[in-house]
Parts: sequence; structure tokens; C-alpha cells
Amino acid sequence: MRSFASDNNSGVHPRILKAITDANTGHAVGYGDDPWTRDAQSAFRREFGEDARVYFVFLGTAANVLSLNTLARSFNSVICARSAHINVDECGAPERMVGCKLVAVPTPDGKLRPDDLRHALHDVGNEHHNQPRVVSIAQCTELGTVYTPDEVRALADAAHANNMFLHMDGARIANAASALGLTLRQVSRDCGVDVLSFGGTKNGMMYGEAVVFFRPELAREFKFIRKQGMQLASKMRYISAQFSAMLTDGLWRDNAGSANAMARLLADLCKEVPGVTITRKVETNAVFASIPARAVAALQEQYFFYVWNPEPADAPEVRWMCSFDTTEEDVRAFAAALREALR
Amino acid sequence: MRSFASDNNSGVHPRILKAITDANTGHAVGYGDDPWTRDAQSAFRREFGEDARVYFVFLGTAANVLSLNTLARSFNSVICARSAHINVDECGAPERMVGCKLVAVPTPDGKLRPDDLRHALHDVGNEHHNQPRVVSIAQCTELGTVYTPDEVRALADAAHANNMFLHMDGARIANAASALGLTLRQVSRDCGVDVLSFGGTKNGMMYGEAVVFFRPELAREFKFIRKQGMQLASKMRYISAQFSAMLTDGLWRDNAGSANAMARLLADLCKEVPGVTITRKVETNAVFASIPARAVAALQEQYFFYVWNPEPADAPEVRWMCSFDTTEEDVRAFAAALREALR
Amino acid sequence: MRSFASDNNSGVHPRILKAITDANTGHAVGYGDDPWTRDAQSAFRREFGEDARVYFVFLGTAANVLSLNTLARSFNSVICARSAHINVDECGAPERMVGCKLVAVPTPDGKLRPDDLRHALHDVGNEHHNQPRVVSIAQCTELGTVYTPDEVRALADAAHANNMFLHMDGARIANAASALGLTLRQVSRDCGVDVLSFGGTKNGMMYGEAVVFFRPELAREFKFIRKQGMQLASKMRYISAQFSAMLTDGLWRDNAGSANAMARLLADLCKEVPGVTITRKVETNAVFASIPARAVAALQEQYFFYVWNPEPADAPEVRWMCSFDTTEEDVRAFAAALREALR
Amino acid sequence: MRSFASDNNSGVHPRILKAITDANTGHAVGYGDDPWTRDAQSAFRREFGEDARVYFVFLGTAANVLSLNTLARSFNSVICARSAHINVDECGAPERMVGCKLVAVPTPDGKLRPDDLRHALHDVGNEHHNQPRVVSIAQCTELGTVYTPDEVRALADAAHANNMFLHMDGARIANAASALGLTLRQVSRDCGVDVLSFGGTKNGMMYGEAVVFFRPELAREFKFIRKQGMQLASKMRYISAQFSAMLTDGLWRDNAGSANAMARLLADLCKEVPGVTITRKVETNAVFASIPARAVAALQEQYFFYVWNPEPADAPEVRWMCSFDTTEEDVRAFAAALREALR
Repeated sequence: MRSFASDNNSGVHPRILKAITDANTGHAVGYGDDPWTRDAQSAFRREFGEDARVYFVFLGTAANVLSLNTLARSFNSVICARSAHINVDECGAPERMVGCKLVAVPTPDGKLRPDDLRHALHDVGNEHHNQPRVVSIAQCTELGTVYTPDEVRALADAAHANNMFLHMDGARIANAASALGLTLRQVSRDCGVDVLSFGGTKNGMMYGEAVVFFRPELAREFKFIRKQGMQLASKMRYISAQFSAMLTDGLWRDNAGSANAMARLLADLCKEVPGVTITRKVETNAVFASIPARAVAALQEQYFFYVWNPEPADAPEVRWMCSFDTTEEDVRAFAAALREALR
Repeated sequence: MRSFASDNNSGVHPRILKAITDANTGHAVGYGDDPWTRDAQSAFRREFGEDARVYFVFLGTAANVLSLNTLARSFNSVICARSAHINVDECGAPERMVGCKLVAVPTPDGKLRPDDLRHALHDVGNEHHNQPRVVSIAQCTELGTVYTPDEVRALADAAHANNMFLHMDGARIANAASALGLTLRQVSRDCGVDVLSFGGTKNGMMYGEAVVFFRPELAREFKFIRKQGMQLASKMRYISAQFSAMLTDGLWRDNAGSANAMARLLADLCKEVPGVTITRKVETNAVFASIPARAVAALQEQYFFYVWNPEPADAPEVRWMCSFDTTEEDVRAFAAALREALR
Repeated sequence: MRSFASDNNSGVHPRILKAITDANTGHAVGYGDDPWTRDAQSAFRREFGEDARVYFVFLGTAANVLSLNTLARSFNSVICARSAHINVDECGAPERMVGCKLVAVPTPDGKLRPDDLRHALHDVGNEHHNQPRVVSIAQCTELGTVYTPDEVRALADAAHANNMFLHMDGARIANAASALGLTLRQVSRDCGVDVLSFGGTKNGMMYGEAVVFFRPELAREFKFIRKQGMQLASKMRYISAQFSAMLTDGLWRDNAGSANAMARLLADLCKEVPGVTITRKVETNAVFASIPARAVAALQEQYFFYVWNPEPADAPEVRWMCSFDTTEEDVRAFAAALREALR
Repeated sequence: MRSFASDNNSGVHPRILKAITDANTGHAVGYGDDPWTRDAQSAFRREFGEDARVYFVFLGTAANVLSLNTLARSFNSVICARSAHINVDECGAPERMVGCKLVAVPTPDGKLRPDDLRHALHDVGNEHHNQPRVVSIAQCTELGTVYTPDEVRALADAAHANNMFLHMDGARIANAASALGLTLRQVSRDCGVDVLSFGGTKNGMMYGEAVVFFRPELAREFKFIRKQGMQLASKMRYISAQFSAMLTDGLWRDNAGSANAMARLLADLCKEVPGVTITRKVETNAVFASIPARAVAALQEQYFFYVWNPEPADAPEVRWMCSFDTTEEDVRAFAAALREALR
């Protein structure tokens, strides 16, 4: 059964799996002091600059939470979009691990604007309120939308002007960079991002994400935060080898580009189906659509996907995600099934 | 370069790697609602009883910490051996994540006795002191020693008689079960253990550990604890497939048994080398030895291993660990190198 | 200079101060095992029922946070009004101490309705989201409004029907009970409240608040939570003596009733001043008004008070609080000063 | 019934109570922005230097824990004596609030030596271990012993040489300064202490302790830590007025000096009683003695005091504390009762 539920329903890209298999040779010192990890860190530095500091963790939740844990203390607040993954899908891991407050701002499209910081800045210096310290954005957002470099830069400037950091949740940064036709660096560091959670799992890896610091001094204590945060892999070479493969010969871009293209095709095919409305701009690998309620169950018998918003009851909003391994055949079959369900 | 530094310096067993590769087919719902995970959970229930509840996490630190987080509140204390991994090698993750106090009891051999609980029990009911709630033991211990079933049972009885739980850190439970010639269940649940951290990584897996609850009611909220504790894998099938392989055809026992046998051989060979003293009972896959200081550096040029105790300066205590993939050839070469270094 | 900034700007009522002075005799065992504390606890039980369990803490922040800490674990959520003190004025103490998420619901008047729980209940059982466990309301609210007993009962029923607790922040419960003409028990326990933070400081005490449990089993571990939560007073008799005085001869009601009456008078006098609009229902001791911006600074030279909402810029909303010791003279002078400032 | 159980069993000194009563006049802005607080802060600066930064909290637990919370992050460790109050009598508040590990070093007399830091320093830079960051000592210690200025200076130098801070728990700093015949500054700041918890409650105050920073930059975020740590008093003037009285005309020294002298007398009288042995040096207001077991119960019928160490069973060690209000009459009557109980 093919899935349009999430890009983490896909498997592992063959080149990633081969890298894992190739790494399975002999003994290696644990916890990252091995040649595979050194290679992967070099690959990151080539991508993001020689003074970037990169640390691997197991999963995206941790990449985000430990980034925030580095930047904020418990009396701080983190400003994010209300729809942000850190706000709605982490079972409160940021609050629990950092102890801070998330200031979750409603947005029309999942994207923060500099003006969204204004309200929180009223609290600066007042001990009764959490002190704003981090702006956290996702590129692309949970709604599949993409920030332009100028938009990120404007947020970075606003953050820095107010003694705050800019954190980017890049669980799908590859999809964003591919959509914009830019390098990974151009969509993050070059726009003023201070710390990046770099996603691997949703783009064809088995497990593993990276925390990338663009200001070396911010990374100084991260190795302790990672260990105490239960994210130091003993056999780290198997994460590192995956990242090296991902950053070789543009695999990250190919995977993400393919997922994006399939989403584009899916939207184009489905919007022609009577009764179906594409509800949000399709900029990356997510398609949001309002479909007649009667089609949902029928379609879910053939494909995994989520109802994003059950209201209105007669025409709920659904989300369809494409993965690196979603094929044109998958997409056409899905659109046909949708059309059939609505006949 | 071969390593005797830790059993996590080894790679992945070929059957484990094959299981991973075989799992890399098609799409699967994320976060554990997939056939591989159901199979692995069944395998665990066959091993430990039908009402066992099993949850997979990424690493041993998390298996231990989240177990404790389930059993204890912040005002509780956890009694463990001073040499316990949770006490000395987790950068304080238990204190940070649970907020509790570890009552670390000195022991001659890494093993707690019922009498070691006595002092902490003085504090029961007194609000100025953490309330003892969990006894946490490792089987085998950080020192390679093994509890007999009777010893574990005595601890379980003492714990339960005082309204406490018994947690077992089973990062190397396979080595202990193999050493004792017992089943996994016989060395844990059948001795009164309430919650078990079941180790995979140190016995030939790539990553992945399990938390196994032997009293279903204790597991009720664990899925939230795991998610908020940053340990819910999205592509969980790749952990599950490894565990299924590990529990098939006694792979866990073969791997651990081989590591244990190699440690036995290593100790036997090295104790014959003049100047070398085996300092602790070799019951599993660890060998501790006192060797002349001048041999350390020479030997470390050829093999990874750790100095366990730098004192006395002229004859420090070193630790040599054997892995599932340590060969007789490795061991003989190591012993020869040791002899050479001391010539 | 008289203050309308907050009811905590007032001093200590003479009968409270006398109770403190009277308690200053001889030696007493520390931490609450003293006759004054036993007396005060008895007074609470007479007020709320013989099986109520009462614990004293230093301040309201702690009464609320430690109540929540008792009822919720870190993966839970607490539903409250967006304007709630626990949400906006505690520098994130609930998030930090409990680790949970506050689900802050916008309300027109500071009061939650059963329907406000609905959204959070969608998350029940889904490990990606905090699990709703506590509904926390303030009586009276931060906006000075009062829940009717039926309204509280409806919330209690909705909470209990969904495996949740109802917590009441009673920092100003005396003001609410006085406004409703009911007993303290009638506005809390009898409406289904499970745990009450009972306020003293804002109603004429020097320091000290109480946590009152109406289900004894919930209190079982509170003494440890209080101690670890840094709220166990060594010389507790001085808090206890204050509470005994407060619950004797209706002092709590006289103090609160007077503050409420003065707020009523203040609103009545000020609403006659041209350009002034009373913006919210005056039910207890708070008056909210929109006044021309030019009057604010002039008036603040003579009286302390806060601008509640700086917008609109030409007619901001201010808050004026009356205390137990606010006199009719104070109120008339303030109204006259307001009129003068607007001439 | 007179108490020798703890110096917090005493009441409030009349001059302190008068200061409270005198402060009960009119309205004052809450949370410390009032004249009484400014006066008290000035008094502290006169005592400790103009750049000292002083913050009031409710109790000693909080003064210590919030000091540590300022100096350490969760991956740090705090080195203290095993007998330290923060280690044995806070129900794990430091671990819970800071998330750090306490490295509790056994000592013969409650006093740390520079050499005690050595073991923890082995862990520096190793991510598997908490990183030492704070040395915390009590002056006087939990065992009533006193550090000489040279001893504190040596610890400060050792701490600073290793990138650590020196925190002093001064719950009884007045007793120590009195015993040494030095000023408060001479026993703390002038010896290299970075942050001091300054005790009031045990020396005749009703409630209230101070956190004093001797390096202003360390205090920068403390107001947020205090508020989120649930220690910001709304009616702060009543704490401040007490401290002003305490620092006026040497009240702190008179109170502590009297308690010390009474302990001296008590020890002198009791050591003459057959069967009684004074077990520790009496340097401040604590007397530790070994007395025949049969005397304990008889004496506890007349006086409160604690058994410090129940072993050996026939001659347990008891602790007798003197307070600012312990009289010579109290002491002589106690010694007589002891003699009587042992007749």
C-alpha cells in the first residue's frame, strides 16, 4: 500500500542503504571519533562554511529541542508559528526539555513575519514574563510553504536587533532549497540563520538529523547537551555514512526535487477532479485539498493519508505528502482513485 | 585496527544488516504502526510473556532514563551501584530528565545487595529527603559481573516489600543470560524485575534498545513519555526488523556467547603474561587487568582500549571488552602484543 | 501615595499583624508540626469539610504551580484562559516546573466554558500531543469577572467526564465568594473543584497561600512536592497564625467585601467623568476603564496603577484595583483627580 | 517547651518584629520596587561592597538552589560535602530545579578541601560526565564547623583556576563571622566567594533570605530565575524591613554571638556529665554529643532535639542547637536535666 501520509512513510534511498552497508566494516571508536563522522562533518563544512559546527542526533524532535536548549534558558520564550511542528507535534518536548514558553503566533500560511515579534518584545525586561530569545521558523513550513531568502533575512535582522537568535527547523530544508533553486547555505546561513536543524529522515535516510551551528561559539557546550539529552549515538558511523551519501552528487537535491515535482503533478491532476479544491499554495512536497467527505474513507482504503482539518464536516481538508520515492505512476493512480471515489 | 575498548566499537551482525535491508521495501506507516514492529513486539512477548509491553527507543541511555521516568517522580530516589552506568556515564541524564536523586552505593563488584537499601529506607516518609522508589541494577554489571537469579530475586523482594520497583539495565542482558545458561526471561521477569532495558546495540545491532514492562499497568503512559522524551522513531521498522532478527534462532545468545568466550580466552592468555594481573572475575565479555604502565601506550598504538583506573600509576587497571565479532585470532594477537610490550 | 495598581500594594490587616505578633512566643517545632498550624488546618477543615487536606506555601505562584505539578505530568496539558495569571504573569513557571503545555484559550471575559475543552480533547490518546489533564480556572478571574456556581459545576462535570481535574486559582476567592454572597466552600468544593489555591496575600495577609485538596488521595505526595518545590516554611507558625485570623469572624469576607464595594463606587464615580468608559463588568475589586491618553501620566503622578492595554493609543485601557484598605476617601479623591486630569 | 532541635525553632527577634510592624504603613509598589527594599539593598551594599547585587527570596532552600541555577547548567556538576544541606536535606531540590549532579565528597568535618576537587576534574571535557562548574560550601557547615578565611580562599583559588565558581551557603554565616571575629564581607567576598546565600531565618528573622552576587555580571538574569523559581514576593517590604533591622547596630552579630556562646556553655556543662562525650569541635551554635541511649527519650520529653546518628545503638550521637534566644537559664536547665536523666 502506497502512502501519501508523510514523507517518513517512505523507505531508505538505495544509495543511503549502500553507504550504511559499506560502513559495516571492522571496528570503529564509538560516539563519533571515527573516519565516517569526520568525513560527514567535512561534507557539511563544504556545504555551509568551514567554521560551521555540526553534530548528529537521532531524530528531528531532538535536533529542534536540543537547538532550542542551547539557545534559550527556561525563563526565555521561543517565538514560532502556531502551526509549527515544535508547537503542535512534539508532545510538549520543547517545554519539557527547555522549560521555556513557546509563543505561538497565528499565521495565514505557516510563515512568521518580523511584525509577529512585536508583541513578545513588549515583555523584555519584565520579570513576570518569559524573555524572548529565539525565533524558530521551519523551511519549508509545516504547511509546505517556503520563505524567500529575503523573508528569512528580514526575520534574522529583526531577531538579531532584539538580542534574539534565529533557529531554522530544516526537517525539509532540501525541499525548500530545491523549490527555490538555491544551495542549502543560501537558504539558511546566508540569510542570517544562527542554528539549523538539518533533516535527513524525511528525505530518504533511515534515521539521523544534524544540528548545524553557524556561529562556532554557540556550539561550545553542545556535546554535553546532546549527551545529557540522550542523543549521542554510540555507533555513530551509521548516521555519518548516510549524511555523506546525502551530500554527495546532489542526492539531497534529487530526492527533494522529485518529491516536489510529484506534489506539483498531484495537485495539477487533482484540482481537475470535480469537488476537489487545492487549499494552499503547493510550493514543496505537500498538497492540501478540500475534498467531499464521502471520498475520504474510500480513498483511505487504498492509500494512507491524514485529514488535516475535519471541518467543515462535508468538505474536510486533507494533506497528501510526496516522498523521494513517490513515482509518477503512484500519483496518477492516486488521482484516478480520487476521481473514482467521487464519481 | 581492532578494538577492545567497548562492545559498541563493533559493527553490525550480517543477519541484522540483512534484516534492515529486507525491511527496505515499500511504504510503511510511521511511528511503529507497521508490520515489522508488530512482529518484533510478538517476538518479545514470546520471549517474556504475553502480557509484556515493549517499546523501542534509539539508545540505551534513553531506555534507562525513560524507564526511570516512568517509575519515579522527581521527589523520589533511585538506588544503584556507585559504578552503575546510569550514575557515572550518562552526563547526569537521569537527574536532568527525571529530576530525582541517584543514591549511589559503593559495592565491591558492581552488584547491589538487599542490605544496600537499608540506609535509604530511613528516609521514607520524611519530606526533607528523596523518597526511595526504584532499585536499578545492571545485568551484567558495568564491571562484567553477573547476578545469580537468587540475588536478583532477593533484591526484587526487598524492593517490593518497601513499595519500590526493580529496574534492570539490560544493555548486556544477553551476555548475562548466556553466562548463566538461562533464558532472557529467567534472568529478568522470573526474578521479579518490573521493567527491563533490553540492549541491542552492544550485541550486534546498529541502533535500537527496548523498554520491556512486565506489569502492563506500568506501561500505560509510556508512549507519551517516549515521545516527549525524544525517542519515538518515525521509520521504526528499521529498529523493529533488527530486534526480530536478534530474537530469531538465538542470534542474541550466539553473539553474546561468543563475546563471553573470547573474554574468557583473553583472560586466560593474558594472565600468563608476567606482570599482568586479572583484577576482577571474568563472567561475561569484560576483562579487567592491572598491567605495567609502560605497556599501556605501546599497546594502545595497536588496539583501542581504556584505562579504567589510572592508579596506581605504575600498574593501572585497564578494561578490555570483547564483542560478538571478536575472533580467536584477535584475542591471540592481542595477547601476543601484550607479551611483546612487556618483554 | 495611595495605590490602585494591585491589591498586593496594600499592607497587612491589623488583626493579621496581631496574630503574627501573638504567635511570637517561645519555641515551636519547625516545618509545620506546631499548634498554630494545627489550628489553622482545623479552621480550613471547618470551612471546606473534614476530609480536606491543606498545605501552606509562601506565595500564589507556588500554590498554583505545585497544584498543577501534583495533578499533571510533563506530557499532560493544562487548559486555561489566555488571560489567566498562570499563562501570562508567571514567567513560565508552570512550563518550567511541571514541564507541561498550557493550552491557553481566548475568552471574551476571562472565563472558560465547557466548550473550550473540546479542541484539546481531540488529542486524547495521540502521543504526538500533550494529553489534557487539568482545567485551571481563576475565581474571580484576572479580569475581575466571577463564575456562577453553575458555570463552575459545568466545567467540573466536563473535566471529570474526560478524566481531567478541575483546579481553581483562588488568589481572590474571597472577592468572588463575597460578590456571590456564598461561602468559600460553596464557590469551590461544592461546585466540583478538585484542588484550590487559596489566596491570602491579596486579601490583607503579609505572605502565605494555601493549597487545599478536596480529594484526600490527591494530597498523598504533596508534602514532598512542596519541599522539593522550595515552599516548605521552617517557621510555619507565622503563616498559620495569619490564616487562622483570616478565617475567624469572617475577616476574609469583610476585607474582600470592602474591596469589592470600593471598586463598585469607583466605577460609579468614574463612569460619570466625560471621556471615561468602564470597559468590563465590575463584579469584584477590579475596575477596567478606557480613558483619554493624556490623563494617564497626570494621574500616575498621584496614584499607582497600570495601563492594561496601550491600544488604542488615544484611549488606552487602564486597570484600577481596590484593596481591603482602600477607603471611600481614597476613591472619591481618585475620581476627583481623574476628573481634574480630564478638565 | 524549649527547643534545642534547630535554630529555626526560635521565634522572631523583637527588633525584627518591630521593623515588620513599622513597615506596615500605607501602600507600596509590589515585587520590590519600594523604599524598604531599596534601604535593605543599600545596607547589604554597605556590608559587602557597592557593586554587590542582592535579591531577596523566601527561604534558604531557594537561596541555595537559585544560586546554583544561576551558576550551573543541567550538564554541570556541583561539588559539595556529603553532609551538605543541599545534598541531604532538600528532598533533591537542586537536582530537580537545576537538573545537575551533586558530587558529594565525604569529609571528616563537613569542610571541603581543594584536594576534594581533583577527582571531579578528571571529567572535564568528557561528554559522558557532568562538567564541574560550582564548588558549594557552607559557612558554618552543617556540622557547626567553621572555615578559616585561608581555607575558603584556597577553595576559591582552586575553583577559579578550573573555571568554576565558589558558592557559599550562608544560612548561618552570622554564626561563622561571629566565631571568627570577622565581618560578613571578610568571611565571604574577601575570601573569593562568588555568590552567597545569606541567611536570615535561623538568626532571628521570620522568613527571608538573600542571594548576594559579588560579580555583578552573574546577577544579570537572576530576576527572571527568581520569578520563574517561584520566589518573587509581592509584599517584599516585609522581608526587606527585616534585613534592614538585621544589618543595623550589629543585630546579626549579637544574635549569632549569643547563640554561639550558649552552645559553648552547653558543651562545657554537658561534657562534665558522666557518660556524655562531645563528639565534634564546638565552633558555632551546634553541639554534637554521644549520650547513653537511655537518656534520649527521657530528655526528649522535656526538650526538642534530634538524634543525628542512631549508631552505635547504646550511645547515639545527638545534636543540640542554640538559638539567638537561648538563655543561660535554658542551657543550665538542660544540662541539669541531662545529668538527671543519666543518674
